[in-house]
Amino acid sequence: MENFTFYSPTFFAFGKDAEKDTGKLVRRFGGTKVLIHYGGGSVVRSGLLDRVKASLEQEEIPYIELGGVKPNPRSGLVYEGIDLCRANGVDFVLAVGGGSTIDSAKAIAAGVVYDGDFWDFYSGKYIEEALPVGTILTIAAAGSEGSPDSVITNENGMFKRGATGDAIRPKFSILNPALTQTLPPYQTACGITDIMAHLYERYLTNTPEVEVTDRLIEALLLTMVHEGPRVIEDPNNYEARANIMWAGMMAHNNSCGVGRSQDWNSHNIEHELSALYDCAHGAGLAVTMPAVFTYVMQHDVMRFAQIAVRLWGCQMDFAHPEVTAKAGIEAFRRFLISIGMPKNFEELGAKEEDIPKLVKTLCYGDGRTGSISGFVTLNEEDCANIYKMMV
Amino acid sequence: MENFTFYSPTFFAFGKDAEKDTGKLVRRFGGTKVLIHYGGGSVVRSGLLDRVKASLEQEEIPYIELGGVKPNPRSGLVYEGIDLCRANGVDFVLAVGGGSTIDSAKAIAAGVVYDGDFWDFYSGKYIEEALPVGTILTIAAAGSEGSPDSVITNENGMFKRGATGDAIRPKFSILNPALTQTLPPYQTACGITDIMAHLYERYLTNTPEVEVTDRLIEALLLTMVHEGPRVIEDPNNYEARANIMWAGMMAHNNSCGVGRSQDWNSHNIEHELSALYDCAHGAGLAVTMPAVFTYVMQHDVMRFAQIAVRLWGCQMDFAHPEVTAKAGIEAFRRFLISIGMPKNFEELGAKEEDIPKLVKTLCYGDGRTGSISGFVTLNEEDCANIYKMMV
Repeated sequence: MENFTFYSPTFFAFGKDAEKDTGKLVRRFGGTKVLIHYGGGSVVRSGLLDRVKASLEQEEIPYIELGGVKPNPRSGLVYEGIDLCRANGVDFVLAVGGGSTIDSAKAIAAGVVYDGDFWDFYSGKYIEEALPVGTILTIAAAGSEGSPDSVITNENGMFKRGATGDAIRPKFSILNPALTQTLPPYQTACGITDIMAHLYERYLTNTPEVEVTDRLIEALLLTMVHEGPRVIEDPNNYEARANIMWAGMMAHNNSCGVGRSQDWNSHNIEHELSALYDCAHGAGLAVTMPAVFTYVMQHDVMRFAQIAVRLWGCQMDFAHPEVTAKAGIEAFRRFLISIGMPKNFEELGAKEEDIPKLVKTLCYGDGRTGSISGFVTLNEEDCANIYKMMV
Repeated sequence: MENFTFYSPTFFAFGKDAEKDTGKLVRRFGGTKVLIHYGGGSVVRSGLLDRVKASLEQEEIPYIELGGVKPNPRSGLVYEGIDLCRANGVDFVLAVGGGSTIDSAKAIAAGVVYDGDFWDFYSGKYIEEALPVGTILTIAAAGSEGSPDSVITNENGMFKRGATGDAIRPKFSILNPALTQTLPPYQTACGITDIMAHLYERYLTNTPEVEVTDRLIEALLLTMVHEGPRVIEDPNNYEARANIMWAGMMAHNNSCGVGRSQDWNSHNIEHELSALYDCAHGAGLAVTMPAVFTYVMQHDVMRFAQIAVRLWGCQMDFAHPEVTAKAGIEAFRRFLISIGMPKNFEELGAKEEDIPKLVKTLCYGDGRTGSISGFVTLNEEDCANIYKMMV
């Protein structure tokens, strides 16, 4: 195990009606003038936004609003939010929505107190300071409610990049599983896929002797394999939603990823797809992961065999471990299809002829020099081969 | 799953030589005058105490010292520490040692800023305020490095009670697995047993639909079953020590215990033993748990069968689940014996003739009214029967 530090000082309020304490939590964590940031549609229609406002009003905390966050959140709205906060003396950013809304809120929070262009953080600069952020989560997926990360799409070129810093870990996150019950099955399945991707990306490590984090990752994956189909079958299953929601947070607050190298190649390869085609991130991951895993399996057959046995219940083929390793990848692929995820470029809405363009942005965008690194290093040819496997 | 809140804002610095940053961390979390609290012997002999002092001196942070913490830490030293802190204007308590030292430090930290008798907190009063506490952990066991809990033995009657409050969660905890390599095998095994007890106490729940926390608990138990024997065989196995150390923290910061009722009957039954005989808490738990589990197994046979299958690899007897449930308890008992733990009263140094006294203190001490509650409610007769099973 490698040396590490771990700091997750987010206060989680979990359960039915948890959002009623929004005002009290904003006050507890120092907010006196709030930006409520959200997407649109469902948060308004469900009455959630009104309940959040009522809770702030009860505590006599003034607020302004900025809606309009889209999936794969854009840099343009972040600039708008930064200006709005500065003009109105906002000292707390409250995200009401899913990972896109939270990531956009984090970008605004970091940008408000920064002299330069907020995009610097998405080009590698560590976020040292930000306005406090609170979240009210409406989809279990990105894990942004407990993470120090944010991903934004730069509209100047349509590419996605991530930023990180303990300063953007939410001060509090309100997790009410009932708020996720209105999600369409497709979005629910995208969330399940994203959570599983956060776990697989941590599982694919080159660090030896990481039993405790291996086991924790497997525990959360086992939860997803058990609860995922239940919630697809019955979207109103509160208990399954609750188990998925806590797993989604734990999958990405990094308590199960400490002290080990991680992969993130699948995320990087997918980011080009959702940036170019505006497809759902989870859907892109569903098409990406089986291809990546098959391509890199030979790098550590026993690691893939281990998860095949422990997660997917495959029989270990001790004479031919690669048979077991492959069976585990195939079981994952079938699972993703069974919950309604796309299986190839066509179903995703991606085009084979764009592969050269995808590879170029992936391997050279934003300062990269011809490859991406993780569990293995993948050069242009590798990345092109992987995209071709997804066609 | 039940509604819950979760807040674990401890900064963890984990790995080789992590204690070199002690001074910087004390400064980061606001300490300007420190009480260094420790036991004695090994912390001094190993040079750790000197290294800690040097790190504080490097940051020019003044300190005073209070050593002498004993296993099953006593109320007398807590009173002494409170007076010492007040007389010297201490604003930060730094524990260097194991769970006993950390628990004693937490009691002092809470007592210093409280007008009444600190024992009020150990009689049920929630700890709302305390001096900041930091820890440098030297044994993986109690989980106090990441928990809001403290257990102290009242010398006026020799009984152990616990206190809790987010205010006594450490601001930082330094976890260097190498510091645990000098522990004798018996103490190491006691620590392993304590960690497993924290997991079993959470596993025994009456809350349905808790897949995610069930799986997380199993993950940490699987880690202990894998790494425990490795570290008993080779005390210098850094990697096994590291996996156990992170598992020990995760086992008790409650991330795997949220949203579910928990047991803690085994802890309560054991506390009378270590209070009366001054035996190691882990050793007492090793004798207690198999007896308690056997006694309460019928309350939920399928829960015991589940852990028998998932943790101990028992074959499920679908026609007779109680056979599997029993096999799991027996596997746990054998495991504890295999790592060197005592198996009965005699090996523990406890006496059958004391059972009426143990039961009385257990069921009536400190405001209880004839029973203890957890996974099941146990009255005087139940508790006497359980102690008899341990003879």
